[in-house]
Amino acid sequence: MSLLVVGSIAIDSVETPFGKVDEALGGSAVYISVAAGYFTAPVRLVAVVGGDFPERHRAFLEEHNIDLEGMQVVQGGKTFRWGGRYHYDLNNRDSLYTELNVFETFKPVIPEKYGRSSYVCLGNIDPALQRQVLEQVAKPRLVVGDTMNYWIESKPDELLKTLRVMDVIILNESEARLLTQKPNLIVAAKSIIAMGPSVVIVKKGEHGALLVTKDTIFSAPAYPLETIFDPTGAGDAFAGGFVGWVAKTDDVSPGNLRKAVIYGSTLASFCVERFSVDGLRDLTYLQIRDRYRSFMELSRLDEV
Amino acid sequence: MSLLVVGSIAIDSVETPFGKVDEALGGSAVYISVAAGYFTAPVRLVAVVGGDFPERHRAFLEEHNIDLEGMQVVQGGKTFRWGGRYHYDLNNRDSLYTELNVFETFKPVIPEKYGRSSYVCLGNIDPALQRQVLEQVAKPRLVVGDTMNYWIESKPDELLKTLRVMDVIILNESEARLLTQKPNLIVAAKSIIAMGPSVVIVKKGEHGALLVTKDTIFSAPAYPLETIFDPTGAGDAFAGGFVGWVAKTDDVSPGNLRKAVIYGSTLASFCVERFSVDGLRDLTYLQIRDRYRSFMELSRLDEV
Repeated sequence: MSLLVVGSIAIDSVETPFGKVDEALGGSAVYISVAAGYFTAPVRLVAVVGGDFPERHRAFLEEHNIDLEGMQVVQGGKTFRWGGRYHYDLNNRDSLYTELNVFETFKPVIPEKYGRSSYVCLGNIDPALQRQVLEQVAKPRLVVGDTMNYWIESKPDELLKTLRVMDVIILNESEARLLTQKPNLIVAAKSIIAMGPSVVIVKKGEHGALLVTKDTIFSAPAYPLETIFDPTGAGDAFAGGFVGWVAKTDDVSPGNLRKAVIYGSTLASFCVERFSVDGLRDLTYLQIRDRYRSFMELSRLDEV
Repeated sequence: MSLLVVGSIAIDSVETPFGKVDEALGGSAVYISVAAGYFTAPVRLVAVVGGDFPERHRAFLEEHNIDLEGMQVVQGGKTFRWGGRYHYDLNNRDSLYTELNVFETFKPVIPEKYGRSSYVCLGNIDPALQRQVLEQVAKPRLVVGDTMNYWIESKPDELLKTLRVMDVIILNESEARLLTQKPNLIVAAKSIIAMGPSVVIVKKGEHGALLVTKDTIFSAPAYPLETIFDPTGAGDAFAGGFVGWVAKTDDVSPGNLRKAVIYGSTLASFCVERFSVDGLRDLTYLQIRDRYRSFMELSRLDEV
């Protein structure tokens, strides 16, 4: 089924203990779309770039089944750029620079043919813009959204309004605690459900992920990677794998959302094995299915 | 099958954000034995108390199928006492006092009839004493041991010698990282396997537990408790549930060790629901089995 993705496109320079990459393709909408493109195609992308956006990055997106009609190009403008350096344990990073450039004045305009999209994934952008997207889409079947500590702290009221129109919110442990001021993650997730979304997914990095609804909890394991090259985009690859699987199967049942969490974790695990989007460059259906099965094996338990 | 447990018996005073308990029964050997006693009986306990050890605590142990022949009573001596206060988020605690008393000179003496014990669980005591226990037991089928940051930092050489004679080591996340100096938990667990034990269990609190062997990894979810009254003893209750299940079934196969991890988690989850050993006071087989099934439900995933 049709999937609309809105978010950022960036040019990233990233340093980790294992190496460095310059002028790489990045941004939330990129990771989400590329991951989702392994399940459903073409993914409808709405984002903005400058006239400097490299042809090779555009080609990469096209090769990954992404429809670029909604990608605004601001001639004479510069693409959003971000530079970061990860610490030794990869759990913390310093932003070296953040140049918003054309992203600063980004107004998502949904092309008419995207106006009927069954599934919508709102990458991490200003929550007010996330709502503007939804105003241009007729009754999507499922709205999946991401956010981050920056918006929780700087635009809490806008974020609360946006949460009311999201079906699934994906955030990480510290964001869930920050948003709710509850140290217990289960209590935090349930508090977020009271804010609007019927499904809360809490990403816990090396500890896996939790999918929490009003009545159920699903605990997904993490894939036991011994070496993580570059954590950049893992959260967005998770969102893309999750929403891509749901859009492919057009099934929002609780059992299928559990599977979608594992497909999200699968794409995230591939993502961090290489720099930038390289981990998502050449996956095959067989590789994805094999890793899904490894996830099942990780938590397999026989009957009592 | 026969199970021998060696560790500490303490009288605890504990304060959490939810309340306070004074002069409560505590100590690693207590939590391990009581938890294990739900699976296999009588549990053979070797530990030391002073002449001041309250009759009600002795009665509690007897009521829980614990054989006290190996409990040394030092008349005129005082029982090990510990006082602690947990912080708001329950992840950190301050020790208010630690009076080792008779525990300071504890030398485990294994009664002759315990000399053939199929299963041995070594609670958190000096690693040199843990080895002394094993020297008094003829070829146990499985040796399960616990340790803590204190021994990792103060007696690393003794601990390394003891690790060589343990089959299963149970430790928490930060202890695994401290022992190996590896930030990645999977790498840390595999480094510990290289030190001797064939099975490493890493307890991760609210994130569940990992069981790591040379070739396999099992990721166990945490039970989603919204309120934890008192975390004291949770790790020992885990060890007791784990080793108790293995001793009951006399089955050390990989599939059964996975089940044992869930039974360990089950007993730990009951433990923290009340103060001190009260959470383990009156459990029924039905309650334990129901919670085991809830654990299965938490990670249940249909086929691809």
